[in-house]
Amino acid sequence: MIADKKINKLKEIVGGDAVSTAVEDRIAYSYDSTRLEYLPDIIVKAKNAEQISNLFKFANENNIPITPRGSATGLSGGCLAVNGGILLVMVEMNKIFDINTVDLLVDAEAGVITEEIDKKARKFNLFYPPDPGSIKSSTIGGNIAENAGGLRGLKYGVTKDYVNSLEVVLPTGEIAQFGAKTVKGVTGYNLKDLMVGSEGTLGVITRATLNLLPLPQKRASLLALFDKLTDAAQTVVDIVSEGVITSTLEIIDNVTINAIEDYLDLGIDRNVGAMLLIEVDGQEGAVDIEAEIIKKVCNKNNTTSCKLAKSESERDSLWSARRAALSALARVKPSTILEDATIPRSKTVQLIKAINRIAEKYDIRIGTFGHAGDGNLHPTILTDLRIKEEAEKVEKVIEEIFKETVKLGGTLSGEHGIGISKAKYLQMEISPETFGIMKRVKKAFDPNNILNPGKMSFD
Amino acid sequence: MIADKKINKLKEIVGGDAVSTAVEDRIAYSYDSTRLEYLPDIIVKAKNAEQISNLFKFANENNIPITPRGSATGLSGGCLAVNGGILLVMVEMNKIFDINTVDLLVDAEAGVITEEIDKKARKFNLFYPPDPGSIKSSTIGGNIAENAGGLRGLKYGVTKDYVNSLEVVLPTGEIAQFGAKTVKGVTGYNLKDLMVGSEGTLGVITRATLNLLPLPQKRASLLALFDKLTDAAQTVVDIVSEGVITSTLEIIDNVTINAIEDYLDLGIDRNVGAMLLIEVDGQEGAVDIEAEIIKKVCNKNNTTSCKLAKSESERDSLWSARRAALSALARVKPSTILEDATIPRSKTVQLIKAINRIAEKYDIRIGTFGHAGDGNLHPTILTDLRIKEEAEKVEKVIEEIFKETVKLGGTLSGEHGIGISKAKYLQMEISPETFGIMKRVKKAFDPNNILNPGKMSFD
Repeated sequence: MIADKKINKLKEIVGGDAVSTAVEDRIAYSYDSTRLEYLPDIIVKAKNAEQISNLFKFANENNIPITPRGSATGLSGGCLAVNGGILLVMVEMNKIFDINTVDLLVDAEAGVITEEIDKKARKFNLFYPPDPGSIKSSTIGGNIAENAGGLRGLKYGVTKDYVNSLEVVLPTGEIAQFGAKTVKGVTGYNLKDLMVGSEGTLGVITRATLNLLPLPQKRASLLALFDKLTDAAQTVVDIVSEGVITSTLEIIDNVTINAIEDYLDLGIDRNVGAMLLIEVDGQEGAVDIEAEIIKKVCNKNNTTSCKLAKSESERDSLWSARRAALSALARVKPSTILEDATIPRSKTVQLIKAINRIAEKYDIRIGTFGHAGDGNLHPTILTDLRIKEEAEKVEKVIEEIFKETVKLGGTLSGEHGIGISKAKYLQMEISPETFGIMKRVKKAFDPNNILNPGKMSFD
Repeated sequence: MIADKKINKLKEIVGGDAVSTAVEDRIAYSYDSTRLEYLPDIIVKAKNAEQISNLFKFANENNIPITPRGSATGLSGGCLAVNGGILLVMVEMNKIFDINTVDLLVDAEAGVITEEIDKKARKFNLFYPPDPGSIKSSTIGGNIAENAGGLRGLKYGVTKDYVNSLEVVLPTGEIAQFGAKTVKGVTGYNLKDLMVGSEGTLGVITRATLNLLPLPQKRASLLALFDKLTDAAQTVVDIVSEGVITSTLEIIDNVTINAIEDYLDLGIDRNVGAMLLIEVDGQEGAVDIEAEIIKKVCNKNNTTSCKLAKSESERDSLWSARRAALSALARVKPSTILEDATIPRSKTVQLIKAINRIAEKYDIRIGTFGHAGDGNLHPTILTDLRIKEEAEKVEKVIEEIFKETVKLGGTLSGEHGIGISKAKYLQMEISPETFGIMKRVKKAFDPNNILNPGKMSFD
């Protein structure tokens, strides 16, 4: 515990109303969207960069850890105060300053809910492309810290591709600016892209300028069914080879389809090997041309049904299966563990087959769905973690999935991060040499290991 | 000078045939595409990463600087051995290992000429999008080190957007891997993007996996003339607002048009305020639709002539002015200084007008052309640096252009880098806090300042 004297000093620095040590507050900020919990000692509600800068000076002097937190929708434990100390709540820094409709930029504080940015942009016929599943509740600062992805990744990229410049409070207290408000820029080291995805371990993001895009005039949505998983996967590869860059290219496997049918009774054939949900967007006529190409590719690969939505309500109905995927899987068993193994696109079939083999070996149910265009899959393990044997089995299952992923040239995480959840697997993928320089970079930013300690297997 | 004993030791480590101290070799490697020259002490021709790793161990022990060099087409002095020492020639590491036509990846050594990668990709109906002006002679390693841009930046991005993973020899001798061979990946720190554009100061890039794209089916090229520069600039903004992402959107100002006319006599009206060269590419029908939109936007903004190329030979003819721009300017005076000031797209007119004001003030000729879609302009100063007064004037002119650029929210360099040329201006843009953490990052990678010292105003 931290002495009262220090807490009083802290209140002097950041203002008494910003600080709480009440146990109910501490508990409220002890969890995120993983199944992990760590109790912080002090809650501080951030108001501005200067306050955070002062906080870091105090924390360095007194050796107290600081862990920043947005909306806690993270899936790897990035915002959990593993070593206690100060939990820095960012959600009150939630101003959207400015939308620049000529340079297509928006300037916002880190605590803004990501969807608010997109909503505001749409008033100007613009949009913010990254669309993580948590978009309605996650903060843009959290999205940047984790380099959040989403369904539109293949065409539109991920959060990193939309961060133009950042204001960051360094763990040593300086307020730094990274990036430039230009489309191109090579002045100095690219610390902006280093900061994106650093999981709140290199600095606290306080403000960001983000790129927006003009809203596409039109979109077309298709749902295609395949008896064989391999045909669905080949369709993904062929669509990309045709030069059609889809905005969405989602795959749903047989296990997940059956869970969805149990849940919603949509009338999908339970023997379907895999389902693809495909969207293209862009200029009016161009979209129609691309939809035709996609249909041809699906037919060539033995689709048993390929539906093109004729209206927005038909689109909604095509999307219902994909939207329900996680909820449908979640109701099968008390615990749902959503992973995000990511492989080169060509290895999709091999990974799904390996996952099915692992599921059979351990007699556990795993539904797989995800962003097939990116090779970013979400194998979802259905279990009951209250049963000790099940929990132990799950650990083995996860480890085997990751081993298979890395063997296929893949990566542990496509979009959820390492944090605590995957820390012990990190060196399965990262060599000692690469890990060594990561540690030196962490030390350069945070010599006293004040910021978000205990993550990424650093200590 | 370095003692013979040390040179003999060096020959033992990397092989005698890899080492030269002959003055003619040293002179041959003393320059790049700036007007600067620095004589290295020893030339070492790199053969593989292990050899470079051993070289770094030797260099750290003996405090000898190492400066890596590709084809020396750089425009900021990045490959010049400012403090002497070892000049590490990378061009013999020039193997292209593999083109993966499913995942759209190519794996190549750092010394491969960039155009060779593109040529090889085209055999598989793929292409490598970044197209720096130096593509026929620059190496991919050099392109990555400088984050080279080019004409296709607005639609296709820059080198950074195509680097999938890197093999890097760190200045402390470790061989590290950065990035993953997947479309998405957030495992560990994003050291790959930090390495891109670090100008050979954080590590020696030895091998890279790069993203390729399917060749677009069709392209359309348009050349539009405007009496007023402001109308041309508004056209650029309006095209982007319409959601048309052009593959090329180049602007050429009146000074440059006149130089081109002097040179080639193409019959362009010498009173034209500015010229835009615009290309779109993609699916067959989609390209026609986009070309129509562009024509409408040009007409709305008072174009005096808007030609659409009807054939590849007509396209070549539309391109002739843009292709000749730099050569045409270069023949006006003995010295040509090509800058790459970059501003937010909305500030294009303000920057060109400011450049013209500065030209008038100092009675010097400056032609401006460049990538208007990105706001990446190339003001080109025409002078005679052999005359002392002219050289001094140029210094002042450059400083004023940069001041204006930064004032407009721009950046010192869109694609050429800081190196030596812009080192003294760096802190005009970068705050002491940001520069401080850059220095700490450099130190984390290179504690003894062995790799490429004397750049980016670090020492």
